[in-house]
Amino acid sequence: MPLELIITPGDIAGVGPEVMLKAYNELIENDQDDFDSEEAKFLFVGPETFWKKTAEDLDLEPPTDFLTSKEIEEALPDNYEIGHISAECGNFAMVCLKQATHYCLEGPQRALITAPLNKEGIRMAGYRNAGHTDFLAAETNSSDATMAFYTPDLKVVLVTHHIPLSQVPTAITSDAILSKIVQADSLAKDLGIKEPKIAVAGLNPHAGENGLLGPEDLDIIAPAVEDARIIGIDARGPYPPDTLFHFAKNKKYDVVVAMYHDQGLIPIKLLSFDQAVNLTLGLPFVRTSPDHGTAYNIAGENQADHHSALQAIKLAARLA
Amino acid sequence: MPLELIITPGDIAGVGPEVMLKAYNELIENDQDDFDSEEAKFLFVGPETFWKKTAEDLDLEPPTDFLTSKEIEEALPDNYEIGHISAECGNFAMVCLKQATHYCLEGPQRALITAPLNKEGIRMAGYRNAGHTDFLAAETNSSDATMAFYTPDLKVVLVTHHIPLSQVPTAITSDAILSKIVQADSLAKDLGIKEPKIAVAGLNPHAGENGLLGPEDLDIIAPAVEDARIIGIDARGPYPPDTLFHFAKNKKYDVVVAMYHDQGLIPIKLLSFDQAVNLTLGLPFVRTSPDHGTAYNIAGENQADHHSALQAIKLAARLA
Repeated sequence: MPLELIITPGDIAGVGPEVMLKAYNELIENDQDDFDSEEAKFLFVGPETFWKKTAEDLDLEPPTDFLTSKEIEEALPDNYEIGHISAECGNFAMVCLKQATHYCLEGPQRALITAPLNKEGIRMAGYRNAGHTDFLAAETNSSDATMAFYTPDLKVVLVTHHIPLSQVPTAITSDAILSKIVQADSLAKDLGIKEPKIAVAGLNPHAGENGLLGPEDLDIIAPAVEDARIIGIDARGPYPPDTLFHFAKNKKYDVVVAMYHDQGLIPIKLLSFDQAVNLTLGLPFVRTSPDHGTAYNIAGENQADHHSALQAIKLAARLA
Repeated sequence: MPLELIITPGDIAGVGPEVMLKAYNELIENDQDDFDSEEAKFLFVGPETFWKKTAEDLDLEPPTDFLTSKEIEEALPDNYEIGHISAECGNFAMVCLKQATHYCLEGPQRALITAPLNKEGIRMAGYRNAGHTDFLAAETNSSDATMAFYTPDLKVVLVTHHIPLSQVPTAITSDAILSKIVQADSLAKDLGIKEPKIAVAGLNPHAGENGLLGPEDLDIIAPAVEDARIIGIDARGPYPPDTLFHFAKNKKYDVVVAMYHDQGLIPIKLLSFDQAVNLTLGLPFVRTSPDHGTAYNIAGENQADHHSALQAIKLAARLA
């Protein structure tokens, strides 16, 4: 059975369909060292007419296989303004995402690659999820879905996601950190690293300097690292967050477990702006996405850079 | 009156004296585009015998001018182990720092460049300050001393320093942020930037996403940015912290005001590991230091890289 790559359109007023079609064209037209298009089947989520028209407008080869339904066809807005937020486009993105999610749950070797959506748009459409990760966790009953980021130089797994900074110190528990260390170790192994070295970031400046700058590094993070070592994972830390990413970039560690959103995302965006891949760990299937937003300001102008989407598809294929 | 550059030894069991002597030798031996050694007088803090012996051991030109005293001569330990922490070396570092501080306070055009000390060592010697910045603030009665970092690509001013992360959300006040924006603007102007653009980082993920991910960005940071604009500073923000440093690196902004230690230090260390210059704003005189520690593990082996020290001296001269 071939690998199936399920590609969502995201918010169709943004650059999602464009970057996905550009990435698809590059993958089917050019030989890639790290991707064999013969081995994979691309399934584009949404009406055939929509994808064919969009490909034609961009002078690209249209996809050949689609995942669609009456609900999807009906959700496609008749009129929508490229580059503008709307409840209609928010709704269409979510209807497609939902269908894609269920399809991925129903069979093996299916990987989901999602195009960017606009959080305000989905809120306007009545959805209460904070974004893809939350929706996928709820829809698949995954209690431990985790945001992670992949770049050639740095892999980061987040312990907490989209919460206020003031809530981070109480949100990080030893159990949660241990679970993310286990996921980081699995990710590294799925990437072909035989004996992964997992570095765990501290929470406080200098990782708390022996408790002088906060208790969490000693009381919460260190025990999780110890527990991980007991079950055979080569976890280390907690390390001072400011220098850790330098060492990780220089291959001293394979994956970094970061305590909060910006601790992990500042280095990811600095090293690979708009080129990183966002992935969700802890789901029943592989899910990746480009690490950029809808970019309304350049939508419809055939100017969007598709390299993050390309990397997202390749990484999904590699992991699935 | 020539510029005087006051150089402390720091913890003499570490690499401080070595990097300072190497930097001094490079500055007096080679013409530098951005430093005129004829215009500056180097004053090394500590006994002449100490500096001459250390230079001799390293096969370097010794300095010619010294700032010393009976107290300093007596504080120099007879015996100390290179590469090891001790109360004696901690005490000597602080006695030298104190004398240097007072000398800088007593005359114009004096800039202080401090070699690294070990915080545990100074604590063992009975000092209660968390480090250089705290000591200098207390000793000069400066209520608004600020840690800042300089690299060719990125300049960062911190609103909070060495405090637990859990205390950051309540420690950032609009007044404190405004004051750091003013200091950031002055720093940029001292560096020759005529119309500085000051970017202010948010506190929460995505700068709070309109309050959804925390109130501080809207309630505390945004008013400080507005107040800064009212007094004529081109301040912008609060910006999402994860992408801001990418834009700052690419020269969209001249200085970034960061809310907490690791928010500012993760990008600094990632872009310029061990090559950044640490500086203190808000003192009555210019103070810089190399952005690395005592590096006990390579002390006494003539292996320490002096480029951060070199940049620290050059920056001090430029700002003074």
